[in-house]
Amino acid sequence: MKIIVDAMGGDNAPASNVRGALAAVKELGVEVILVGQGEEILKVLKEDGIGDLPPGLEIAHASQVVEMCDNPATAFREKKDSSLTVGLNLLKSGGGDAFVSAGSTGALLSAATLMIHRVKGIRRAALAPVVPTGKGGAVLIDCGATAEGTPEYLLQFAFMGSYYAERVLKRPEPRVGLLNIGAEPSKGTDLQREAHALLTAADKAGRIRFVGNVEAREAVYGEVDVIVSDGYSGNIFLKTMEGTGGFISKQLKSIFMKNIFTKLAAVMVAGGLKEFKKMMDSSEVGGTALIGISKPVIKAHGSSNDYAIKNAIRQARDFAASGMIDDLVENIEYMKLSAGEG
Amino acid sequence: MKIIVDAMGGDNAPASNVRGALAAVKELGVEVILVGQGEEILKVLKEDGIGDLPPGLEIAHASQVVEMCDNPATAFREKKDSSLTVGLNLLKSGGGDAFVSAGSTGALLSAATLMIHRVKGIRRAALAPVVPTGKGGAVLIDCGATAEGTPEYLLQFAFMGSYYAERVLKRPEPRVGLLNIGAEPSKGTDLQREAHALLTAADKAGRIRFVGNVEAREAVYGEVDVIVSDGYSGNIFLKTMEGTGGFISKQLKSIFMKNIFTKLAAVMVAGGLKEFKKMMDSSEVGGTALIGISKPVIKAHGSSNDYAIKNAIRQARDFAASGMIDDLVENIEYMKLSAGEG
Repeated sequence: MKIIVDAMGGDNAPASNVRGALAAVKELGVEVILVGQGEEILKVLKEDGIGDLPPGLEIAHASQVVEMCDNPATAFREKKDSSLTVGLNLLKSGGGDAFVSAGSTGALLSAATLMIHRVKGIRRAALAPVVPTGKGGAVLIDCGATAEGTPEYLLQFAFMGSYYAERVLKRPEPRVGLLNIGAEPSKGTDLQREAHALLTAADKAGRIRFVGNVEAREAVYGEVDVIVSDGYSGNIFLKTMEGTGGFISKQLKSIFMKNIFTKLAAVMVAGGLKEFKKMMDSSEVGGTALIGISKPVIKAHGSSNDYAIKNAIRQARDFAASGMIDDLVENIEYMKLSAGEG
Repeated sequence: MKIIVDAMGGDNAPASNVRGALAAVKELGVEVILVGQGEEILKVLKEDGIGDLPPGLEIAHASQVVEMCDNPATAFREKKDSSLTVGLNLLKSGGGDAFVSAGSTGALLSAATLMIHRVKGIRRAALAPVVPTGKGGAVLIDCGATAEGTPEYLLQFAFMGSYYAERVLKRPEPRVGLLNIGAEPSKGTDLQREAHALLTAADKAGRIRFVGNVEAREAVYGEVDVIVSDGYSGNIFLKTMEGTGGFISKQLKSIFMKNIFTKLAAVMVAGGLKEFKKMMDSSEVGGTALIGISKPVIKAHGSSNDYAIKNAIRQARDFAASGMIDDLVENIEYMKLSAGEG
């Protein structure tokens, strides 16, 4: 298994990308191609006392870098020798099995869609992070790749999320829920009502396990394995979780820093807090799968450190090994409102 | 100031409603009319050793109770002698200045809209809770009174939320943000893009202080005083906050209950945790304002205890005293897309 890693994308690039890749090669049984400015990559290795490229690690030179100020829709075309474009071309030509980037989400999304293409019949690719829940996490699909929703998009997201949960997260018969503001099928807007009917039919046909609408609170508690949502609402859900988690962490920190007794208390619960922090930490998951593209693409968090990059590579490996893209291709007929439009 | 309280609505009715009303009469300088089954109300008072109605507390008898199984859209009409219908009739006829109910949200919303009516020109009434944020809370409008959104609804929600924040929460020049998935005006769906243009125009005209799009994370951190949203997304935001808060609380509890040291730690930070809990506790606010109706209506939380009911009565008092409904009436022309449709 060979993973292509954008060495130049992200807040801590190229250092964290290079070090994360090194760790992945050592620990995860994968080969990695680092795509980016060769001299920059070698500089990081040299800083770590590594003179020669270790076995399993290659460099593919790309002279340009996609910056946050570039137009995300066209960056890959305007900067043909960017790590993004060179990396995705490698993926396309079969030079590697999956692609990981911590660079601009918008640029990655556009480039992957236009260069690698969606699975035939899939209307929209979706960003599907694994969010922490009371029961070990759930796939949230979509969290903002496409703001607008249609019932057919949601039907496809449900299949894509279900395959991902089953094949990559190893959840047998994953419970699929439609994010909504009430449990009854009549709740929400026309979008949710129509999607509810489509998902119910897919469940009756035995193709997914649709457990009905799920309210945001119950979704956080872990009532389902897959949270199906239009990109706008999914993004609100994800960012509210992150915001609330961050807000509470900050409050807790100030509670523990108050005086010598509270500081002592912090020491006493340090183990538990560390475990909890790990559970809530997005760097544990590594990145967000871009599902619906015909090859595996992982968006790592922009602020990824070495550890998060390594975990994103692990996730890319599992995604590529899962065979779930074949599932999409084989079952695409059941994911359409009407045949022949694909 | 006289507040009409539905004595029969909510999980702890009538006990908490009666006791909350008693506390309000004693502490808040208001009179209260308890609407409901007279003998049930007197029974609660008797249990507390109160034989005669204290000054400031009245009972208006209503023989029926709206139950959760009643059709929310028609319950007030089918149960004409319910505490909901009798209470709202009292409000309509000027027998009191505001109405508080902890009963079914849907039934209250329908009844208030159809019996008391919206302010002329207001398209939809909105549920506007004050959510805890890093900066003392923000008005979230709408959190689910109407699932569907239109640009005009959002424009009106922005005005309503702004008046409420200024007049009731005493925030001078409240910062109004549009809940969205990015800061740029081009972000979101057509709904947000069109609303952004309307809110920008209202800001330029000096009528509200629109600070632009606000992402869910920044909204939680307290970047704005008013979070404008369609009811579907607002509900996702609110329930995700509640869910994440509840999930983290549960995890923390288990961390503190682990062993004798962690239990000792819990004692050491008990003061800080209590303060924090108070900040996150919805019973501190009391209830959710139903804004856009021509008289003040407060929806108290279904699980309200005595303390939450008292605070909901306080909120109803402040709402009624604020004069913000007059603001709506006076400024309605600026809140319409086209004149004469009201």
